[in-house]
Amino acid sequence: MSLKKTGKQTVKFACPPSVIASAGVAGKKEGEGPLAKSFDFISEDQYFGEKSWEKAESAMQRLAFTHALNKARLSPASVDYVFAGDLLNQCTASVFALRDSGIPYFGLYGACSTMAEGLTLAAMSIDGGYADTACAITSSHFCSAERQFRMPLEYGSQRTPTAQWTATAAGCALLSSEGSGPYITHATVGIIRDAGINDANNMGAAMARAAYDTLSAHFEDLGVEPRHYDLIVTGDLGLVGRSIVLDFFRRDGADISPIYDDCGMLLYSNGEQDVHAGGSGCGCSASVLCTYLLDAMRSGRCNRLLFAATGALMSPTSSCQGESIPGICHAVAISNVKE
Amino acid sequence: MSLKKTGKQTVKFACPPSVIASAGVAGKKEGEGPLAKSFDFISEDQYFGEKSWEKAESAMQRLAFTHALNKARLSPASVDYVFAGDLLNQCTASVFALRDSGIPYFGLYGACSTMAEGLTLAAMSIDGGYADTACAITSSHFCSAERQFRMPLEYGSQRTPTAQWTATAAGCALLSSEGSGPYITHATVGIIRDAGINDANNMGAAMARAAYDTLSAHFEDLGVEPRHYDLIVTGDLGLVGRSIVLDFFRRDGADISPIYDDCGMLLYSNGEQDVHAGGSGCGCSASVLCTYLLDAMRSGRCNRLLFAATGALMSPTSSCQGESIPGICHAVAISNVKE
Repeated sequence: MSLKKTGKQTVKFACPPSVIASAGVAGKKEGEGPLAKSFDFISEDQYFGEKSWEKAESAMQRLAFTHALNKARLSPASVDYVFAGDLLNQCTASVFALRDSGIPYFGLYGACSTMAEGLTLAAMSIDGGYADTACAITSSHFCSAERQFRMPLEYGSQRTPTAQWTATAAGCALLSSEGSGPYITHATVGIIRDAGINDANNMGAAMARAAYDTLSAHFEDLGVEPRHYDLIVTGDLGLVGRSIVLDFFRRDGADISPIYDDCGMLLYSNGEQDVHAGGSGCGCSASVLCTYLLDAMRSGRCNRLLFAATGALMSPTSSCQGESIPGICHAVAISNVKE
Repeated sequence: MSLKKTGKQTVKFACPPSVIASAGVAGKKEGEGPLAKSFDFISEDQYFGEKSWEKAESAMQRLAFTHALNKARLSPASVDYVFAGDLLNQCTASVFALRDSGIPYFGLYGACSTMAEGLTLAAMSIDGGYADTACAITSSHFCSAERQFRMPLEYGSQRTPTAQWTATAAGCALLSSEGSGPYITHATVGIIRDAGINDANNMGAAMARAAYDTLSAHFEDLGVEPRHYDLIVTGDLGLVGRSIVLDFFRRDGADISPIYDDCGMLLYSNGEQDVHAGGSGCGCSASVLCTYLLDAMRSGRCNRLLFAATGALMSPTSSCQGESIPGICHAVAISNVKE
């Protein structure tokens, strides 16, 4: 077995890269939620000054990137690679956000798991000796996602109770071989899991199996119990998917509810903001991690975090052709000590 | 500067991973071209036995993967990671091809540069100590691409002389820390370049600048001349893009024409097969590399290859919104000796 691999799916970084800066950008609705104070930038304008929602998404990524660079006092030229992706067809939010950056670019598609996929590959590129500094970035926009995946907003379609609300948000994390933490210590790379769910308005249920499998693989590969972590967060299963994950673990005899939460539940005030089953979209877990969660680590309120971002890997075409919704979940362990 | 990085964009692998097996699958038209004898499987049926062109693409990827595994005498369980992506919205050809594989999955989006991006990351995962065996795979299908990016086939739209023909093909390469070559020795990670081209029927021109920039960076980072390589192949610039790259190098005083070719020119008999400016699509360069080119290396006809796959990173939506076409090119150096 290769040097840094532990068990079937988990890698342990020999020199855990440090998250030297992170930033999150949010739309108006997200800026009215419980994490309002954590965001680096909240836009009252859903277009972020651009002429289309798609261009707004690129603007959000640029804002998150610029804020993160400023915090780290770095210029774009000092970033070795950027790992980026988003929900738009052909991942154009990321492409146009970073078109003029001059940074070697790896395009990813992991749906809402993109931030965890990007962090994993960015950490591998640094720990593997290919980079000093690498960046993971992603975004989503309620309006661009609705019209691409569901219905034109003008139709005013009704939402089902299990539907999630695509977050208008972006997150960016800068990783470095130097720095004083928080550190990326381990990553568990997800396997595609298909629970046979066909309802594109119930993505939490479609992704819950993948989340449970990746979390279980992580605990087994490292030989640790869930309580090893101060906090385990999935993103974004929402109300339905979160309860399925809790149920799976209960069947194993483990009650993880005291230390488990979901980014889709953290981003909005669920009762008041009318988001039905909670938040979703690449930008949801990315912005929650890059602001609220990493802030909690920097302040010492949380010392060990397991960030398990989930993605639903269908397309409108695959759904129309009768396919069920495959899910994936990548987990990244973040710690205040290099363990 | 990090240990394995040379210059701004190039990495040198400390223990170059070996391509232990590769396979290519082609459609009917591709199977009537000059590389017919190289392919592992040619389908007379454009549906590959499936009910839609999108599902056919997944079937092609599975075929390429199975052929490569059989050649390496490996089971899917011995593959640590798969790096996969394609042109379909949300990269569903790859997702559904690998849904039941049980292999940790990294989803990529690099448009037609995906095979080079996948090879780079797969090689990093092995040389970095995270994997023993990793797989890079991608595909494209003329029919699914036409209806997604251009027009319904039933319209019988006329094609412009600069248009390229999306290949119905898939390629899969298996990399390992063990093996006797060919070896992935270096990778030059591309930077997004936008030449301001707006014509989605002239993608060769849109990507040529990115190809020239990545090739130039590669030569500069390593301090080598183009003639260091027996063959330099881009994929897929076609007739127009290829001539632009030749022209860029001529301005630098270098005539690379004796050692330079393009996968989009190699796949079809240009005069006879009516593909206008040549082939394109993720599957074009992937299938040409994984069959004809790697065969040439294994037989010793070519000992040093520079594989520079190019991607056009627009979407139909970005084009409709007036954006030009950003291009990218990742280059991978493959050698019969571990240099």
